[in-house]
Amino acid sequence: MIKIAVDAMGGDYAPKEQVEGAMLAVKNIKDIEITLFGKKEEIEKYLTNSTRINIEDCRDMVSMGETDPVRVMRYQTDASMVRAMRATANKEYDCVFTCGPTQCVVIGSHLIIRRMEGFKRPALAPIIPSLTTGQTVILDCGANLEVKPEQLVQQAQYATVYAKEVLGRINPSVGLLNIGTEEGKGREFEKECYKALKESSLNFYGNVETKQILEPPCDILISDGFTTDMVVKTVEGTAKSMGKMLKRNLMHGFFGKIGALLSKKNLNNFKKEINPDEVAGGMIFGLKMPVIKCHGSSKSYAVFCGLRIAATVVRQDVNNKVQEALKKETPLNEGE
Amino acid sequence: MIKIAVDAMGGDYAPKEQVEGAMLAVKNIKDIEITLFGKKEEIEKYLTNSTRINIEDCRDMVSMGETDPVRVMRYQTDASMVRAMRATANKEYDCVFTCGPTQCVVIGSHLIIRRMEGFKRPALAPIIPSLTTGQTVILDCGANLEVKPEQLVQQAQYATVYAKEVLGRINPSVGLLNIGTEEGKGREFEKECYKALKESSLNFYGNVETKQILEPPCDILISDGFTTDMVVKTVEGTAKSMGKMLKRNLMHGFFGKIGALLSKKNLNNFKKEINPDEVAGGMIFGLKMPVIKCHGSSKSYAVFCGLRIAATVVRQDVNNKVQEALKKETPLNEGE
Repeated sequence: MIKIAVDAMGGDYAPKEQVEGAMLAVKNIKDIEITLFGKKEEIEKYLTNSTRINIEDCRDMVSMGETDPVRVMRYQTDASMVRAMRATANKEYDCVFTCGPTQCVVIGSHLIIRRMEGFKRPALAPIIPSLTTGQTVILDCGANLEVKPEQLVQQAQYATVYAKEVLGRINPSVGLLNIGTEEGKGREFEKECYKALKESSLNFYGNVETKQILEPPCDILISDGFTTDMVVKTVEGTAKSMGKMLKRNLMHGFFGKIGALLSKKNLNNFKKEINPDEVAGGMIFGLKMPVIKCHGSSKSYAVFCGLRIAATVVRQDVNNKVQEALKKETPLNEGE
Repeated sequence: MIKIAVDAMGGDYAPKEQVEGAMLAVKNIKDIEITLFGKKEEIEKYLTNSTRINIEDCRDMVSMGETDPVRVMRYQTDASMVRAMRATANKEYDCVFTCGPTQCVVIGSHLIIRRMEGFKRPALAPIIPSLTTGQTVILDCGANLEVKPEQLVQQAQYATVYAKEVLGRINPSVGLLNIGTEEGKGREFEKECYKALKESSLNFYGNVETKQILEPPCDILISDGFTTDMVVKTVEGTAKSMGKMLKRNLMHGFFGKIGALLSKKNLNNFKKEINPDEVAGGMIFGLKMPVIKCHGSSKSYAVFCGLRIAATVVRQDVNNKVQEALKKETPLNEGE
């Protein structure tokens, strides 16, 4: 059985959506067992089927607007996210799942779960939709605003194992986000990263412009934490605003309204396709135990999708495979 | 009469769309006179009405795939873009318009038009659609990949005058693109820029996340040239890919197809709303003479829109107003 520690109190709609998502997950994924960390009486309101679902009662929680993540993750020892992480660090569980605030998840991962041996800068890697392959792994989404080229290469190595084991890609290719496709484009950082990626054993595609963000020519897109975060939020914002514009335009005039009505099913499919819930489940790469973080606004279906990723990461033994890959690549640095 | 020097050979569809755009402009804007720089015989193929349109025959042109912009802008002295810029630098025209390759336009602006006195880092500022106000000025779109906070403040000052005079905004507000809205978010660069903008006389809104890229709470969005370029191209890419997804989804099934047919007019309006042509016309801020640069893929309507901006910039005397604003802000640095 794969044992997942779920922070039931993290998220804008917690614990309702987290509990419902957990029930959906155990129903659809046969080899998992879930423990919900959070206020027992709150969780029990929504828990209508407790097959393979346990509760660990926590009297405290991390607030979604938390401004001092270090203090919280260090001292709020009875908060559901902290408890779930500590129990997983102690190997009581195989993996942590949370929809809590990103900075708390990232800092908690560092302080409690800790870095994988030899891995320098853990990265947050969500999955975004792709018209070419269905899904793209994109990183680092805000875990480290600035990184060194060799740290970015390590992150790309983790992403390669992840894309292979979790998304089933054969020989996954890595693209460097840049302002132009030619070698030599970008800041000093991009030039150095280009060189480092080219010299590594990775399947490096080259530079990719953000014009191709939703139909990239590769499986993995990588940049520093600041840039990627800006880009991912731009995709999100553009998709939302375009949805509004579309709605406003479609409901114009009599025939237009009938047309929109007849198109309703197709428009809903479209909405589903661009819905972040469908592709939720960012993983923090480079920790001793896997941590999966979903969007704060996740509904039960998104929670289920995230838990499915969590189960796959454990089942495919991603962390050990990454360790092996890293050892092959940088035998001299492994003790660092 | 406002005299505009148009690089008729710059752009993916040059000179056809440039010539047709120029004819559209003189027909609709009564106080302009256009000179088309380019191959006379090519231009004459499309020029069906030469009222207030002249031709300056140039035997050379800047190629859209140019990889050595410095060499081209220095030594290809008979290239249409170079000729248009030189004549404008000599005050024979009030303004330059081109759809040529960005890096050549930026470098040519530096070498030929030259910086406005006291202005440190000219910036490329396109206009993007906004659901809140119709249009947002966004900068710096790739002219300087990295800048200092005080240079960014100057760029914001230019943008403020531009938003007031060209877009008609009253007391335009400036937002700093960042990964979070709270003060203290971002890299060292964002922290310093926040402080500098707050201390300036500008109407500083604060940090703006890219989730709000198409419906920002302010008139102007600013960041360094690398970040803004990545963000603007992400908007472009997301809009294009979403258009494809929408089309694919809408044409599903019998009723779906009828629905799509009835919605055709509204969908076209939607397409128009998200079409970069409708909002084209980026200006390079901080030069001695105004330079307007439109998208390489501009069609005649986009060229017309860009020329309309060019005319407004000259008519409203934007450059002189910026100089006055800069003198007020930094009296000690004006001679630099």
